[in-house]
Amino acid sequence: MTLKKEILEIARKARETSQILANLPTGVKNAALRGMADALLRAAPALRKANARDVAAAREAGLSAALIDRLTLTEKVIQGMAASLREVAALPDPVGEVTRMWTRPNGLQVGRMRIPLGVVGIIYESRPNVTSDAAALCLKAGNAVILRGGSEAIHSNRAVAETLRGALTARGIPPDAVQVIPTVSRKAVEALLQMEKEVDVIIPRGGEELIRFVVSRSKIPVIKHYKGVCHVFVDSSADLGMAEAVSFNAKVQRPGVCNAMETLLVHCEIAPRFLPAMAEKLIAAGVELRGCPQTRRILPLVKPARKEDWTAEYLDLILSVKVVGSLEEAVAHIVRYGSAHTEAIVTRDYENARRFLREVPSSTVLVNASTRFSDGFELGLGAEIGISTTKLHSFGPMGVEDLTTLKFIVFGSGQIRL
Amino acid sequence: MTLKKEILEIARKARETSQILANLPTGVKNAALRGMADALLRAAPALRKANARDVAAAREAGLSAALIDRLTLTEKVIQGMAASLREVAALPDPVGEVTRMWTRPNGLQVGRMRIPLGVVGIIYESRPNVTSDAAALCLKAGNAVILRGGSEAIHSNRAVAETLRGALTARGIPPDAVQVIPTVSRKAVEALLQMEKEVDVIIPRGGEELIRFVVSRSKIPVIKHYKGVCHVFVDSSADLGMAEAVSFNAKVQRPGVCNAMETLLVHCEIAPRFLPAMAEKLIAAGVELRGCPQTRRILPLVKPARKEDWTAEYLDLILSVKVVGSLEEAVAHIVRYGSAHTEAIVTRDYENARRFLREVPSSTVLVNASTRFSDGFELGLGAEIGISTTKLHSFGPMGVEDLTTLKFIVFGSGQIRL
Repeated sequence: MTLKKEILEIARKARETSQILANLPTGVKNAALRGMADALLRAAPALRKANARDVAAAREAGLSAALIDRLTLTEKVIQGMAASLREVAALPDPVGEVTRMWTRPNGLQVGRMRIPLGVVGIIYESRPNVTSDAAALCLKAGNAVILRGGSEAIHSNRAVAETLRGALTARGIPPDAVQVIPTVSRKAVEALLQMEKEVDVIIPRGGEELIRFVVSRSKIPVIKHYKGVCHVFVDSSADLGMAEAVSFNAKVQRPGVCNAMETLLVHCEIAPRFLPAMAEKLIAAGVELRGCPQTRRILPLVKPARKEDWTAEYLDLILSVKVVGSLEEAVAHIVRYGSAHTEAIVTRDYENARRFLREVPSSTVLVNASTRFSDGFELGLGAEIGISTTKLHSFGPMGVEDLTTLKFIVFGSGQIRL
Repeated sequence: MTLKKEILEIARKARETSQILANLPTGVKNAALRGMADALLRAAPALRKANARDVAAAREAGLSAALIDRLTLTEKVIQGMAASLREVAALPDPVGEVTRMWTRPNGLQVGRMRIPLGVVGIIYESRPNVTSDAAALCLKAGNAVILRGGSEAIHSNRAVAETLRGALTARGIPPDAVQVIPTVSRKAVEALLQMEKEVDVIIPRGGEELIRFVVSRSKIPVIKHYKGVCHVFVDSSADLGMAEAVSFNAKVQRPGVCNAMETLLVHCEIAPRFLPAMAEKLIAAGVELRGCPQTRRILPLVKPARKEDWTAEYLDLILSVKVVGSLEEAVAHIVRYGSAHTEAIVTRDYENARRFLREVPSSTVLVNASTRFSDGFELGLGAEIGISTTKLHSFGPMGVEDLTTLKFIVFGSGQIRL
């Protein structure tokens, strides 16, 4: 069988299964999710054994310690995967919800009902826990999922998927609800991206290069997130202590993630009072600062920021700092150099809070809180399937509801159009 | 200037303008829309003159009478365009609406605020009234629009756009809110489809071939609608008179549009009583019937339906007819051969109505009403920018709200992540 035929076979099975999944009662889905959690815990030794093969290969290939850490399935990681499955079981079922109803002058009652997307393709890198998290969220929303993880995690992903499929079969749900593409070649991804009849959406999770590859090849709609260049704007009226705490948290608490701050914007009126203590605290935490000319007038020892610093996603203990003359200038900087991900203002001014919230066109906009809250779980979605920085379908962290769509339902009594 | 540079210039101006449009007060947008209506009426003689050039060229090129009819700007069509602009002015403004708010255990208040998509590209064929309709809906939702109409309407589209831009300028709104691509070559479209940084969404409106071309080339998300193969299912318990009226209306009232019925499904228990009178009425209206073997046992004079009839979008007075054994068989036929557009059931059975509504995965599902109601205006959206038969972003007829997205807004009091 050619590779293309093999992928088509997988996609067709997913499409077929999706029609069954769309109409599963909530109780059946939740019982299956809990069964999947139990199965993962029971299979822990086998999963760790499969994972050991991937880890050994990664060591041999000389992958970085950080990457090997993300790849490794410890007992604790497996327990976390099982706990996530139980959490998804406890979430409300979005399928079948009627979000609104209204009546037309001719008596037609029109409403919108939430239904699954159908077949979801997830293309991701490294972490084997994405395999069970994505499978859980897709099942809860009534979708079939096709998973294509990184080549470095292939044995782990296959073992996790086989365990989940076994648990599905035991509950009478077709195991093709969760399928893993068994080939690691990019040709397999390319083939999948052509199957717009069988697959409804592609969610790539990984580096910018992977995502650009997917977008340029896909005939299927892609929900994507290139990078997170997040800003904190310290307004002239900010409480100094709060501004310091929020900025420090946004940069230092976990610098390697997409909702960490990369650029600090400071109003010129507060900069001389705010920046010296803030810089001292950041530098003490190991942060390298890169400043605009005005910043360097206040902090002469700071390196100059170059143009590429304003668009950089460092994912590291580096921070660019810019002094701005007004709220307008801060917003304009964010629009020009940002990535539409997450921005925060620290202020005590009612009107500036309101304007920042309204005018900043990013997927999450916060007042007096750290950018690190831009996360499906922290915002109250229960879990996260990914994040979107394009405005189509979803914008920002995506939960179970984002794996559904709304159809129109119409109740009539014989109406015809005149 | 190369073509690519010229298009990039247009796209950049649109992006820049979109930032101003996103924050325009509702009153300013509505006044501009009314000003655009007045301007179209004042410019009617000039518009008709420009249109006459297109019509003459179309006649010379031997275009069909139907196409020339759609292309022609009569006094009445221009009045209709002005009336639509006023209707859009009267619609509620979706921008800034906060659809939900909730509070997290740490005190963060999280909500979702509706904001414009940004820059919308519309690629369409023939009808010059799409130029003003699309411009109106995009402006109302705070978006800049880039319009690329069919080559046969180029003079008309330019004249309409110039009139609208003049009205915008007169109200202090940047005229680049509405731009027309001045080149008719497909290369211009191809160039536009690469500009994912400048354009947020592409909505193609036209034949399947145009849409497939756009999907295969676009790096920008596309909201699309390939075709409408709509079904009416007459259940065994249907009221015969209602079933006849709904089916007749769905097929005959306007056969050339995407929400007209193309296949009639009839439950075997009612077929012998329903089909003879129904067929007589349809044939009298000039409809050609093509039936499955069971249909032809009841109606021996009807032509046999071939396999390709079940997926055909006739857009004409032709109807395929199939007798089915159950609701399940009807739903399975729709899923297999349909286009996820619009389907109706005629029934008196509560449980079958409920199951059909729930299980049919099409964008509009009706009980006891004609498929012809699947239309933005008829469903109460006020106006329609297009229709989507893919489930991403929007599914079904799209109104002003579908030209917006939701961002997360967060009100804190200094929260940091632990």
